[in-house]
This record gives sequence, C-alpha cells and structure tokens, in this order.
Amino acid sequence: MADRVLAMNLATLRGGWGFAEAVDGCLRHSITAIAPWRDQVAAIGLAEAARIVKANGLRVTGLCRGGMFPGDSAASRAAAIDDNRRAIDEAAALGADCLVLVVGGLPGTSKDLVGARAMVADGIAAVLPHARASGIPLAIEPLHPMYAADRACINTIDHALDLCEQLGEGVGIVIDVYHTWWDRNLAASIERAGRLDCILAHHISDWLVPTRDLLLDRGMMGDGVIDLRAIRALIEAAGYHGPQEVEIFSRDDWWKRPGDEVVRTCVERFAIAC
Amino acid sequence: MADRVLAMNLATLRGGWGFAEAVDGCLRHSITAIAPWRDQVAAIGLAEAARIVKANGLRVTGLCRGGMFPGDSAASRAAAIDDNRRAIDEAAALGADCLVLVVGGLPGTSKDLVGARAMVADGIAAVLPHARASGIPLAIEPLHPMYAADRACINTIDHALDLCEQLGEGVGIVIDVYHTWWDRNLAASIERAGRLDCILAHHISDWLVPTRDLLLDRGMMGDGVIDLRAIRALIEAAGYHGPQEVEIFSRDDWWKRPGDEVVRTCVERFAIAC
Repeated sequence: MADRVLAMNLATLRGGWGFAEAVDGCLRHSITAIAPWRDQVAAIGLAEAARIVKANGLRVTGLCRGGMFPGDSAASRAAAIDDNRRAIDEAAALGADCLVLVVGGLPGTSKDLVGARAMVADGIAAVLPHARASGIPLAIEPLHPMYAADRACINTIDHALDLCEQLGEGVGIVIDVYHTWWDRNLAASIERAGRLDCILAHHISDWLVPTRDLLLDRGMMGDGVIDLRAIRALIEAAGYHGPQEVEIFSRDDWWKRPGDEVVRTCVERFAIAC
Repeated sequence: MADRVLAMNLATLRGGWGFAEAVDGCLRHSITAIAPWRDQVAAIGLAEAARIVKANGLRVTGLCRGGMFPGDSAASRAAAIDDNRRAIDEAAALGADCLVLVVGGLPGTSKDLVGARAMVADGIAAVLPHARASGIPLAIEPLHPMYAADRACINTIDHALDLCEQLGEGVGIVIDVYHTWWDRNLAASIERAGRLDCILAHHISDWLVPTRDLLLDRGMMGDGVIDLRAIRALIEAAGYHGPQEVEIFSRDDWWKRPGDEVVRTCVERFAIAC
C-alpha cells in the first residue's frame, strides 16, 4: 500500500539524538510524522519544539506521555492530575493527535490492583474535561502484563476499551504490538476497538527471543516473533488507517547505533516486515 | 490455619543442592512435600529418587515438567509426545500428584500463536490416554505472557480452563501467582476453576519491583507486590485446600544463599506473608 505512513516515536532515536537532531534525521529519510517524549520537548523548550514542528510541516502522532495516576496520597494523585493537565497543554501546543497515557501501576507499597485501577479511572475522568476543551484525545496504552506493578495496571486492549466506554468521548487507545501480541483475545479486541471507533495510534516494534531486559530490549521490526502484518490487517479491518509508529527502546543495541542507521533500518523494515 | 501445608518446589533450592540434599534440607525444616524437576531426578536416578521419596514418606506435589508440544516438524512434535509419555512414567514412579505442563511456545521461526496453541491441544490429547491409564493428572500451567514466545502460549487461567473443558477428565491446572497475579479476570477465573474442580496445584513466590531478569529473578514471598493472601483466599473459596508450593527461580539472590537459609526463610514467610 503506497499510502502507508511510518511515524517515528523519538524514543527510538534516544540513543544519540535530541529533538532537533531526531527531526533532522527523520526528514533526511522522508519521515514527516513524529511522536516525541515530554523530556525531549522540555530539553529543547516547548516553544522551539512547536516551531520546528510547524516550520517543517510535521505531523505529531502523539505526545508521550501522560498517565501515572495512582498515588499513595491524595496530594500525589492531585499532583499527577496537574501534571497531566500540563501534558495536555503541551500536546495542544505541538498540535499532537493525542496524548499517550501510560496509566501507572501500584502506588507506594500497595498490592491492591483493583484500587490502582480505580485511581486510573478517576484520574482520567479528572483530566478529561481539560483534554476535551483542548481538543486533545487521551490515548490509553495498555501495557504488557510485565509492567503491571510499576508502569500500567491496564494490560489488555479489552480492559482499556472498558475504560473508553465508561469515560466516553475524548478517550481512545493505543494499540502497541509489543504489549498486546500475546493476547488470545487480540483479534476480537481489535475488532471491538474498531466498533467503538477509538483506535488513536498503532505502535510497532518486535519481541525478541530471548528478551534480555524487561524494559529496554525491544526489537526492530522483523527481528522478533510478532506477526506484524497480521496485526496490521486486523487494525486496518477495524477501520484504522493512520500511521504506524515505530517505538523501540533498545539500550544495548539500537540506541548504540548511529541515528541514521536506525532511521534507515526502520524505513527498510517498515517496507518489508510490517 | 494450622493445617496449611508448604511444599517445596526443588527449583527453589537449585542453587546449591541436588535432589538428596534438598530433601534432607526440607526434612530438617519439617517440610515433607516436594516437587522435583526431571533433571534433578535424572541426576540421582529415578529409582533412587523414588526410594528416597518412599523411605521418607514424602508427598510429591508434582513433577516438573512435561509440555513443550509445539514443534516445526511432525518428527519434533512426535518426539515431544514421546518425552511426555516418559515424564508421565516418571511421575507415576515417584507417586506424584500430577505432571506439570509448561506447554511450549512458538516453534522454530513461527509467528503463528494460533497454530502453536492448536499443537498444544493436540499434544495433550495425544498423551492423555497414557496419563489417565497411569493415574497421573496433567496440570496445565498458564505462564506469564512474557513467556508466550519461548515457553508457553497458554497465558491465562481462563485459556487453560478452556483446554480442560475441551480435553476432559485427567486435565487440570496449576495456579502460579507469579504468572497470573496481574490478570484482571483472576478472581473470576479462579472461581471458574473451582466450578470445574480442576485446580491441581498452587505455586507461590513474589513479583519484585524492579524485576531484573525475565526468568530468574522471582522474589521470596513478601518481598514483592503480589497479594498472596488475597489470592489464597480466592483459591480456598474455589475449593482447593492443598499445599502451597514455593517455586522461586532466583539466580542472583536465593540461589546464591545457603540452602538452609532459603528453606528457613520460606517457612517463615509462609507463616506471615502467604
């Protein structure tokens, strides 16, 4: 399909490049859709990042990330909500398609997943009016269950969709193949996401065997076991035809390579493996 | 509850002890239920292991492990079935309560999880007559989704229960808290397991934050985030009152400590954290 679009999540280029270098690197390879992280934006300054986006006609497929709603005190939960409101403002300043939410895990020493999940729902509900008023959809990203404790207690697409239904307009999901490929209900849940019209982003990478680190050993598309084309077909059948966003955290491999090699490889693999 | 029983999965003591030393260590701490691994049995010899079990009046809560059914050729799948028949014979020789099945992941270079899951169902069906004839229940252990590629493509209790219903008499499940604690459907699926009367074993350990290795960094009960007592309550409410079996793979911590310290700590934590 000639009209498929590769977007670059700038975490993929974190090894050597800041925001400006990453944008230049993407442009050298004709990539005009990016998804930066807030720390990358902060390092160059929000105004300058927004200027670069506008000057180059970039599409910002998402800002990473809001979320982290659970807290072990009312004050910490309120601070998270304030921070998410700021993240919404930043996403609006960048003209982002959505704010990606990594919702948070167990707060403090808690072992109460049910409670944490309630805090997530409450937190999103609290910031949703501001998101709606700002025109920024909130994109819940279900993370792999290996992150349930410390990053996100929403671990399946179906769970995220329940929240979308509960919270209503302005809330959708990210489907990241790395987090969801194993799920026996994957096909059915993607179909459901399509019916609810709430697929906001499609992230790609690959699951390596062996995986040497829980967080920082994601693979380049084609180097692992995920059937990326089959999942894309499900997502397209569900009505989503937006960009596929490459998001690879790879401390010991891709982050150590020259940025241009990483971008070039993403482009090549996008053509043949995705 | 005075009648709770701690069983020791001998993988927990793999750091320094073979089968005989591990049994002696357990007996020093009044533990009389064990679950050995096949390599530990093979190292001392099946006959000698069975003699030690009998001489000491030990309960063998399970033999680890059968499974690994998917293969990229008919020959490799047939070899796996043969090996599982031998594992059933070994379990019978030891008088084990069940044979634990780690069912296997993607064979060869396959990306076809649906196909792998079908191979698992076919494999269990193929060995089930021998298991029934031998009086050895087959215990499907759903593993954490982070093992879907290389160890087990059955990743939730509900999925395992579907197989139990499909395959019928002689097939049950292991509920291992490490693999299942994150599951939003945990309570409902344990209740369902009780209705199907197919809980064959209850494994305990803990999920550490951070977890430094996907396979070999399990925590001692109480050192992580799993609500062990809440899960035990669910399992008891579902009608299972058998042993709780400690299974801790911990290359850089517990496997480096003296075996007696490990056993003593298991006993202490079993009393206060489980």
